[in-house]
Amino acid sequence: MTGGSEEVRIDVSAAEDFLDAGTIDALAPAVTAAAAELEAGTAPGSDFLGWLDLPEALTADDLEPVEQVAARARQDCEVYVVIGIGGSYLGARAVLEALGAGRGETGGPEILFAGTNLCSAALSDLLARVQGREMRLCVISKSGTTLEPAVAFRFLRALMRERYGRDAARRITAVTDASRGALRRLAGEEGYETFVIPDDVGGRFSVLTPVGLLPLAVAGVDIRSLVAGAARLRIRCLLPELRDNPAHLYAAARHALHRQGFRTEVLSTFCSRLGGVQEWWKQLFGESEGKDGKGIFPASVLFTTDLHSLGQYLQDGPRDLMETFLSVRNSVPDLAVPAEPGGGADPDGLDYLVGTAVDEINRQAFAGTRNAHLAGGVPCLTIEVDSLTERTVGGLIYLFEKAVAVSGRLLGVNPFDQPGVEAYKQEMFRLLERPQG
Amino acid sequence: MTGGSEEVRIDVSAAEDFLDAGTIDALAPAVTAAAAELEAGTAPGSDFLGWLDLPEALTADDLEPVEQVAARARQDCEVYVVIGIGGSYLGARAVLEALGAGRGETGGPEILFAGTNLCSAALSDLLARVQGREMRLCVISKSGTTLEPAVAFRFLRALMRERYGRDAARRITAVTDASRGALRRLAGEEGYETFVIPDDVGGRFSVLTPVGLLPLAVAGVDIRSLVAGAARLRIRCLLPELRDNPAHLYAAARHALHRQGFRTEVLSTFCSRLGGVQEWWKQLFGESEGKDGKGIFPASVLFTTDLHSLGQYLQDGPRDLMETFLSVRNSVPDLAVPAEPGGGADPDGLDYLVGTAVDEINRQAFAGTRNAHLAGGVPCLTIEVDSLTERTVGGLIYLFEKAVAVSGRLLGVNPFDQPGVEAYKQEMFRLLERPQG
Repeated sequence: MTGGSEEVRIDVSAAEDFLDAGTIDALAPAVTAAAAELEAGTAPGSDFLGWLDLPEALTADDLEPVEQVAARARQDCEVYVVIGIGGSYLGARAVLEALGAGRGETGGPEILFAGTNLCSAALSDLLARVQGREMRLCVISKSGTTLEPAVAFRFLRALMRERYGRDAARRITAVTDASRGALRRLAGEEGYETFVIPDDVGGRFSVLTPVGLLPLAVAGVDIRSLVAGAARLRIRCLLPELRDNPAHLYAAARHALHRQGFRTEVLSTFCSRLGGVQEWWKQLFGESEGKDGKGIFPASVLFTTDLHSLGQYLQDGPRDLMETFLSVRNSVPDLAVPAEPGGGADPDGLDYLVGTAVDEINRQAFAGTRNAHLAGGVPCLTIEVDSLTERTVGGLIYLFEKAVAVSGRLLGVNPFDQPGVEAYKQEMFRLLERPQG
Repeated sequence: MTGGSEEVRIDVSAAEDFLDAGTIDALAPAVTAAAAELEAGTAPGSDFLGWLDLPEALTADDLEPVEQVAARARQDCEVYVVIGIGGSYLGARAVLEALGAGRGETGGPEILFAGTNLCSAALSDLLARVQGREMRLCVISKSGTTLEPAVAFRFLRALMRERYGRDAARRITAVTDASRGALRRLAGEEGYETFVIPDDVGGRFSVLTPVGLLPLAVAGVDIRSLVAGAARLRIRCLLPELRDNPAHLYAAARHALHRQGFRTEVLSTFCSRLGGVQEWWKQLFGESEGKDGKGIFPASVLFTTDLHSLGQYLQDGPRDLMETFLSVRNSVPDLAVPAEPGGGADPDGLDYLVGTAVDEINRQAFAGTRNAHLAGGVPCLTIEVDSLTERTVGGLIYLFEKAVAVSGRLLGVNPFDQPGVEAYKQEMFRLLERPQG
């Protein structure tokens, strides 16, 4: 396992049985070349490499204003509504869920996400949830005209005016382009507090910019530790030897499996708090790799839940799946199986587990599942952290970002564009008869 | 579109461009044969065909006891905890989410699901949510020894004893085997109220048994309308002509596409309330078809959210995906885009949409996405309902159940077993050193 004593480790050994000996290592020169292109800024999409050294580039001057604004929000609102879609919310939500933060239980406000769809049921649920609670808005959009957040912002802006009158603008923060776009203009006119989305960081790589950091700080997340965790991985992801470099090793292993005919990658976890990380990962990999008719289909399952749903298919279905386990060694808080409450004679057959931690059972379920899937013909990779903390989650973010950048190059695509997302928008705007201009 | 004036309609026309003319209709004899085998009980897995005529077989004698028990629970608890995994909760959760029920807002209790994993973070969140609230338990397990629900039941049984003493047993309902198993035994000893899981209905087909009906009735769902909706589809799914029969047509279309090389089926929806139906569908299709190295990989996306995540991949990635849109024509409640609150000059470019219902925009997003995906090389099927009601959701349930039964036979598998789910359990119990016996 690469990084044995580190907070984030990766193990590709169980996938190697599905490959000819040396297949992964044979990719080392291509990986090194891809990484060198990235560092030199000569790869396709090189206008969007700001995320690459962000963990070390961020200074106290960047973080302090975020922390100050967040501290104020933590004092004067019960619910903090973040308006944004895609990369403008998936990263923050992933970190919040992983850390169990933002639920309004620890003194700070509850974080709610809005503008993530065009479904009136969802919008109406949201409006009901903010009723009668002190609120603030954080609207995140590079342009200010992306349809979903723009529509949600109209509704919520109206609500804020109704509720706070002239003070409404003081309770709205815009995270947007430095100088251009509808939201920047509106923020100037209305006097919103603003933060900048850097030009050289694409949406799906933006969690360590104010896009992610501001909502996280409002939820009480220690954003300095998050950045420090990413910075630590940044250093490891610069190591020249493939086997020492977790991002490169992950990229090489999944690419080797893909070449061997494995078409879908299932990101599996036994930790219910990682559902948001899975969704973030699906955007990161799907949007970076899925183009030019290429890509590995990114799917996710939450175990043991989905062992009782997709488990059958994973075990016995077509053998074109690979599986990456995202594993947490020590979950918190811990709970042990209690003795039979009635004092009866083992009515459910669980007495042999009395005193065993639920997470220990979960770990054996993980080990058992991995063994079974390997035996069933599914190559498995494992990425493991000791526990879910700001540092380890920051590390995972950087590991995956670096991995997809390299992996996309191995595949021969530009990992930083998303030309296909315009297709449905053009059709939709045509149907909505949007004025030209 | 099959069933033009019906509550549930299906349209496969947009998939036919991806097939040679007549390919779908050429499957009619095989579909008819599979359906006849089902009705005659001569297909593999015929011990598990109880779901087939359940909608018409259920009588007031079956439903009244469920409604009575539910009425009592609605009066004396604030939170109703359903313990069960896989087919023991996915159906109920799907219906609740689709109808916006069970959230404790309409007089009845909030419905919470437990025992769906072995993650202490999830268990501990659940224990926090029931604190200080009047509660009842509904434990659903054929055997009573399935690990996840058994562990959760130990914790919750202990909590109930602590809180209600000798009255605890009166607040617990067991849904289990008619005569065998650990839970049946325990229910007898403790005096729990019980309902029976029929022997001839497998977990993933059990939503119209007390497994699904009891929690739904507790949430205030009109279970008679749900059953009536399923019964209506039952009749339509007996029609001999392929083009008149929505289940047969769906089964034939997706099978024809699969033969043509489409390996993954993405169930897409623009209605945020259908997330639970998607998860239920993934179990139903994945577990029924994914065996003997065969199956169509079942994936799901929630739009427009995931257009900003997997949209790029769907538009431009490998062309081995088919897409089934689950569409709701009229969502409720409805909301229209408000005028710019500040009275400013269209700061977000949305003025052309003022007064347009959010759901109307959503419908155009659907139409635009479908056009774009078709143009991008993704064959699309559409299953449409007018609105989400007990009747239409009951209809969808039956449509999908019948479709997967036929579809599994077209694939040449037994759609009613799940031999692969034992593999990880054996490994897990070996690692947990469970006593033999």
